[in-house]
Amino acid sequence: MSSGARSPLAPDRFPPLPPVAGARFAALAAEIRYRGRPDLALLAFDADTAVAGVFTRSRTAGHPVLWCRRILPRGRARALIVNAGNANVFRGAEGDAAVAAEARAVAAALDCAEAEVFVASTGVIGERLPVERITGRVGELVAGLRADALPEVARAIMTTDTFPKGASARSAIDGVPVTIAGVAKGSGMIAPDMATMLAFLVTDARLPAPLLQALLEPAVARSFNSITVDGDTSTSDTVLLFATGRAAHPVPRDPGDPRLADFRGALEAVAGDLARQIVRDGEGAQKFVTIRVTGAVDERSARRIGLAIANSPLVKTAIAGEDANWGRIVMAVGKAGEPIDPGRLAIAFGGRVVARDGRAVAELDEAPVAEHLRGAEVEIAVTVGDGPGAATVWTCDLTHGYIDINASYRS
Amino acid sequence: MSSGARSPLAPDRFPPLPPVAGARFAALAAEIRYRGRPDLALLAFDADTAVAGVFTRSRTAGHPVLWCRRILPRGRARALIVNAGNANVFRGAEGDAAVAAEARAVAAALDCAEAEVFVASTGVIGERLPVERITGRVGELVAGLRADALPEVARAIMTTDTFPKGASARSAIDGVPVTIAGVAKGSGMIAPDMATMLAFLVTDARLPAPLLQALLEPAVARSFNSITVDGDTSTSDTVLLFATGRAAHPVPRDPGDPRLADFRGALEAVAGDLARQIVRDGEGAQKFVTIRVTGAVDERSARRIGLAIANSPLVKTAIAGEDANWGRIVMAVGKAGEPIDPGRLAIAFGGRVVARDGRAVAELDEAPVAEHLRGAEVEIAVTVGDGPGAATVWTCDLTHGYIDINASYRS
Repeated sequence: MSSGARSPLAPDRFPPLPPVAGARFAALAAEIRYRGRPDLALLAFDADTAVAGVFTRSRTAGHPVLWCRRILPRGRARALIVNAGNANVFRGAEGDAAVAAEARAVAAALDCAEAEVFVASTGVIGERLPVERITGRVGELVAGLRADALPEVARAIMTTDTFPKGASARSAIDGVPVTIAGVAKGSGMIAPDMATMLAFLVTDARLPAPLLQALLEPAVARSFNSITVDGDTSTSDTVLLFATGRAAHPVPRDPGDPRLADFRGALEAVAGDLARQIVRDGEGAQKFVTIRVTGAVDERSARRIGLAIANSPLVKTAIAGEDANWGRIVMAVGKAGEPIDPGRLAIAFGGRVVARDGRAVAELDEAPVAEHLRGAEVEIAVTVGDGPGAATVWTCDLTHGYIDINASYRS
Repeated sequence: MSSGARSPLAPDRFPPLPPVAGARFAALAAEIRYRGRPDLALLAFDADTAVAGVFTRSRTAGHPVLWCRRILPRGRARALIVNAGNANVFRGAEGDAAVAAEARAVAAALDCAEAEVFVASTGVIGERLPVERITGRVGELVAGLRADALPEVARAIMTTDTFPKGASARSAIDGVPVTIAGVAKGSGMIAPDMATMLAFLVTDARLPAPLLQALLEPAVARSFNSITVDGDTSTSDTVLLFATGRAAHPVPRDPGDPRLADFRGALEAVAGDLARQIVRDGEGAQKFVTIRVTGAVDERSARRIGLAIANSPLVKTAIAGEDANWGRIVMAVGKAGEPIDPGRLAIAFGGRVVARDGRAVAELDEAPVAEHLRGAEVEIAVTVGDGPGAATVWTCDLTHGYIDINASYRS
């Protein structure tokens, strides 16, 4: 559950989200676990909406994830129903039946196929989902659908989050304006108790599902899969991108089409913005940390090295302690197991080089480095060789607040 | 540096360590970093001593590890010189030269080849090793060698450790009594600042180096590679096993020889005892946690699942909070990525089953489970399928003490 206090790294305000033609939204308080706050949301899409998705790689994925994986290959979506407070995980046949009941209720209300209804749940693991509190409210949700209610969805999906997360961007495909808007939730990365990472993106672009999937996957790699709070993986992590096709541009055939460059950048920007907001809401976070790795053999290798640094408890506690402890970064680079050239290893904090060519900078003036680490935004640059691979990952520090939040009893 | 207070999980006393024929030991205060305590030790062996070793897999391994890896294939050892306070890591050519100077000084004093002198260092990374404080004391160390001084070595290699670690066992090969004695250090797993894992085992068994290596590797897998405090990997982790060959048994030819069964068990017992002592000295540890995984496809897979549970910050904070949060164990099992059968997943705390056949036990009486978690010794049993693979791993909880120790400034 949320500790209540808004993260010190939170953005000043929730951003305005533009409407997306062909998409409408509704949220209400279904009292699935929380009292007196919205915890159930519906996203409804016009006919011919395409969908792409990326899900947790967990071997104990939740029942909604199993359902979404099964219907995703059809590539069509008319709705997403999502609740907070109960993740519907580890419930056997009963959990699958609950998901089917949700899809059936929404399909009946919207007059579409059950296999066009996506389902997501976030919250406590292993408890029975009171599905009747969801299916009994579908009529009300459908009656309340509005084009401007996406911010209400952002609030309804919160669990341990201390602020709602939204982002949008405008771009163009072949000169035709296209909108992308999205919401996300997550604060532990990931507390299966209460904090899964969910992100739902909606665009009016006219893109067939296979193309949409080809655009989503690299955007997820550079955003949601480039952040970490504690290295844990939820049973329910879900990213879905819905494209209503209402923008009147010609349909590009392949993801490398230069007419898609602007859209691709906008998609990465929205996904990256949402992902960084999740880090800013990291449990107990006091500092937002950007780690840039260069000189690796390729982007994937650079990202693995970056995540090894970002996941190291010793690096994260050093940052919490405002300690420019680059020896721990050397350790984390080594532990990643990726090809590196130790003789070229270089490390900088906030642009100040502390190690270069595989050894400490002699007679380093630590004062500007210490000054940088006292701030709330920490930048670490690591060169691991002379290869072309580069990647940026984001994380937060590991503080007493994380222990307080996660060592408290569930009830 | 050590926080001073002895771990609440520490054993009552340092165990008596029997002499090992053909091995002598010495330690003294060389003031490499610490003041007024032993920080330099020498282990000296009779001619014809065989050696086996396992080292960190880090890509940024320290200069002593690089040296040991180079001389290990010869399979012969006459000495090990080891210091605490400075790890001699990330120092370029200067670091390699320091190791060579140590080996040269010891070889001259003992009249042996430099390639028979093993070197280990633990402590701060990236600072120059004041090697002259080592080489200048070798004569004194050699003059002070004693058969009963292994406990002094255990004290001299401590860094963040709050207690010295030793273990021994007697066994027999073909009816001839054989002794194994060992010491270890480590408390973060692993703080490159101060806390590397080092373990040195000595036996009078008569075993050629390739056979010794074949016996050491599985013993390390089931001991030092089955423990974790924080999932971090040192640049300097080193396990060395020296066999003086003074016991008068016939030489077995292969590691599967039934005459070696007793020795193999004793070696695993000593390595496991030392490894568990390292966990008991885990930074900030308040609870010692044993995780037993069964039903995996093989032992290696079981160990990976066990380590995924043991390394999860969410599991470790739940244990610190005395919360039987088995949802987080489901999450960690899923994140391991190993083959499992979710429908057979079962979890027990202290012998009380909380989940079985892939779902929560209905109407569970949580009182005995909560009682078990209030103790200092926590046992978690996880069944992941019906395969033959089983493994046990050991860890500790993640507490405010860990943050206190690791978020404090180096100086």
